[in-house]
Amino acid sequence: MSKKLTKRSEDYSKWYNELVVKADLAENSSVRGCMVIKPYGYAIWEKMQAQLDKMFKDTGHQNAYFPLFVPKSLFEAEEKNAEGFAKECAVVTHYRLKNDKENSGKLIVDENAKLEEELIVRPTSEAIIWNTYKNWIQSYRDLPILINQWANVVRWEMRTRLFLRTAEFLWQEGHTAHANKDEALKEAELMNNIYSDFAQNFMGIPVIKGLKSESERFAGAEETYCIEALMQDGKALQAGTSHFLGQNFAKAFDVKFANKEGKLDYVWATSWGVSTRLMGALIMTHSDDNGLVLPPKLAPIQVVVIPIYRSDEQLDEITKKITPILDELKKKNISVLFDNRDTHKPGYKFNEHEIKGVPIRIAVGPKDLENSTLEIFRRDKMKKELIDFDKVLTKLIFFWKIFKLIFLIKLRPLQMKILELLIVMMNLNLYLKIKVVSYPLTGMDLMRLKKK
Amino acid sequence: MSKKLTKRSEDYSKWYNELVVKADLAENSSVRGCMVIKPYGYAIWEKMQAQLDKMFKDTGHQNAYFPLFVPKSLFEAEEKNAEGFAKECAVVTHYRLKNDKENSGKLIVDENAKLEEELIVRPTSEAIIWNTYKNWIQSYRDLPILINQWANVVRWEMRTRLFLRTAEFLWQEGHTAHANKDEALKEAELMNNIYSDFAQNFMGIPVIKGLKSESERFAGAEETYCIEALMQDGKALQAGTSHFLGQNFAKAFDVKFANKEGKLDYVWATSWGVSTRLMGALIMTHSDDNGLVLPPKLAPIQVVVIPIYRSDEQLDEITKKITPILDELKKKNISVLFDNRDTHKPGYKFNEHEIKGVPIRIAVGPKDLENSTLEIFRRDKMKKELIDFDKVLTKLIFFWKIFKLIFLIKLRPLQMKILELLIVMMNLNLYLKIKVVSYPLTGMDLMRLKKK
Repeated sequence: MSKKLTKRSEDYSKWYNELVVKADLAENSSVRGCMVIKPYGYAIWEKMQAQLDKMFKDTGHQNAYFPLFVPKSLFEAEEKNAEGFAKECAVVTHYRLKNDKENSGKLIVDENAKLEEELIVRPTSEAIIWNTYKNWIQSYRDLPILINQWANVVRWEMRTRLFLRTAEFLWQEGHTAHANKDEALKEAELMNNIYSDFAQNFMGIPVIKGLKSESERFAGAEETYCIEALMQDGKALQAGTSHFLGQNFAKAFDVKFANKEGKLDYVWATSWGVSTRLMGALIMTHSDDNGLVLPPKLAPIQVVVIPIYRSDEQLDEITKKITPILDELKKKNISVLFDNRDTHKPGYKFNEHEIKGVPIRIAVGPKDLENSTLEIFRRDKMKKELIDFDKVLTKLIFFWKIFKLIFLIKLRPLQMKILELLIVMMNLNLYLKIKVVSYPLTGMDLMRLKKK
Repeated sequence: MSKKLTKRSEDYSKWYNELVVKADLAENSSVRGCMVIKPYGYAIWEKMQAQLDKMFKDTGHQNAYFPLFVPKSLFEAEEKNAEGFAKECAVVTHYRLKNDKENSGKLIVDENAKLEEELIVRPTSEAIIWNTYKNWIQSYRDLPILINQWANVVRWEMRTRLFLRTAEFLWQEGHTAHANKDEALKEAELMNNIYSDFAQNFMGIPVIKGLKSESERFAGAEETYCIEALMQDGKALQAGTSHFLGQNFAKAFDVKFANKEGKLDYVWATSWGVSTRLMGALIMTHSDDNGLVLPPKLAPIQVVVIPIYRSDEQLDEITKKITPILDELKKKNISVLFDNRDTHKPGYKFNEHEIKGVPIRIAVGPKDLENSTLEIFRRDKMKKELIDFDKVLTKLIFFWKIFKLIFLIKLRPLQMKILELLIVMMNLNLYLKIKVVSYPLTGMDLMRLKKK
């Protein structure tokens, strides 16, 4: 915790890597390209999951679970999809180890336990799922199927970066089946809208919604909708995709249904996903040279209280004084940590919670008890304020209410950058065919855009 | 939905297999030994997850995520554990496929993409986690570590059964690190108590808490606590385990900490888990020859309303009449389905919701509108009742309140069987060294036990 972060202006990429580790979010594991998501990082991911899961269910989707493995023959059935992932997949070839006779205590692969057909660790689940849907769909009565899966997937990436690109990552993948093209197209757009809504209103990340050009599309899709976020280094980050798959997978797996007129037709499909990469977008959108900055809704610890004391009596007194305030905050569903660890000094704690992006820090010492004050520190502004004890609660709740607003206001300049980028991309006819600008524009914004 | 289930008395095992499929809980996939958990089954699992997750967090545990793969050298580090799982693990040996030149459109393993070191798909995560903890633990200040992981694991089972024994299954695995033996032992017992509390009070499954004999212990553990449930066929089912791992993993991965006196010592460990096997226990405890029976807390649909109508006007009238009741139930957080699908007949719906174990079914037809009545059917008792419209809500809410009690009362005879089994096992000195009887005994129970 002692060493400072590299500044963004010095080396943006280094800043990011250091931040992820120092803020206790994730770290590289001993498995090439795979990360360990630490409890603090995972708690943020859980909050994202809970909100997304609610939004999926509110729009009629259900969760289910399909196998981790895809038999090779199923994997290769949809040719474009197979081609797109063949070069980066982990392959299971054996199902047993045995003792190494030449090396006591060591194990080797048992060559007698070779699989007849190799299994691919899923890089995405279209193949295994459409092979299952085949048995579930006979008639229009069985449609639509609106299923989502929370799962881990593996894509053997050569150059990995924590959260942004890892060999194994966590994600959700929606897989829906429809009776006609129009319904499937609407579903793909709906889910892209949900992603955009989630990114902007829950994570405070401004995004543009786009439609990918043919070369950038998901392998096996007819259209790929996407949300793209702009990072502080001016680079765009693909933050979510929603695919209209046409009848490609239905044809590959021979999934037909009898329509109301009794005629057989291939089923229409979509798939859509966001992953732990969103953690990377979150970090890069909000954070600064002092560490992580978290929108309050995503902060695992929303308020931390650090007591400053020299004796047990002083700690007791502080605890007594602060407890009613903590109780009130908890009642308002604000998560509070009273960091009274006696194993670490206050300076260490200040630093730790600053780099971990706790939105509000309260410090109370013996002097505060005398003067009936305490110190409130706001992480987003890096600003301290000395406040009377009896005004603390009102102040905190006020902060809380305006926080969402603050995050949007703060993001205004970034939003403008995105709009500028958008114009550039449209002019250059780059990889995005921009379709919709998702952020409501003010008159001023439009003026600026028109001038360009 | 048309064919009846095999009766339990005819073929218990066949009854179970049919029930899992017909109740839409899960099915076999095209991957050997791996199952597809269908939306209805997954919704039950989600309810179990949410409650367990809350109980873990309430006792100070945090979630995190570790890699799916374990490099072979780490896998073999703790010898007993490695030996225990070596014969049933999926091994990744390659990381790329390529086009088969002799077979257009087909893919084959690219022999140039052979891994230097094979990766084992985790059968359990002690190895990868303790190799990580090594870097997290230097001093007593870093302890305890109380982490849980929700994940998929793979154990290559030869004979599989849906939920009870599958090659891939979903579970949670807790992995904790402690400064002394006593604390670790207490943790292992605490988590076994949480499992027992969960099984009995949330799932309505009576269990006995036991301590396994040496031969039945988890590979690498010094003690294994467990909960065992009794199924309707008289067989016991291991429903959860909690292991005191001693210093075995700390020694295998060289994880030492400096205690308060500055002396180095190996860290003490526990691990504990329950899995989708609990779904099997749930099914086998409550269900009957008509299908699934669900404790109300675990039912994805708690009340289903089936309108019986011949014309759109009749449906409209029924909808108008029933809507206020549905709204009241929803306000009380009771999940309600108004099954007005026009693609299926009432008889089909009755059958479907019966086999899927929806606790309460309400039927309303034109006659009910005339007479101001409706029919309530209770799945646990398989009993219909005709009730006045204006008494429906009171009745339903009354049912709801007594439901928990009903499930416990219903289980009383089963509980007695378990106690009898317990005595037999103690006498035979079987694989369980019974330590604690978890269920509060009444005076009558004790009398019966003493007589034996």
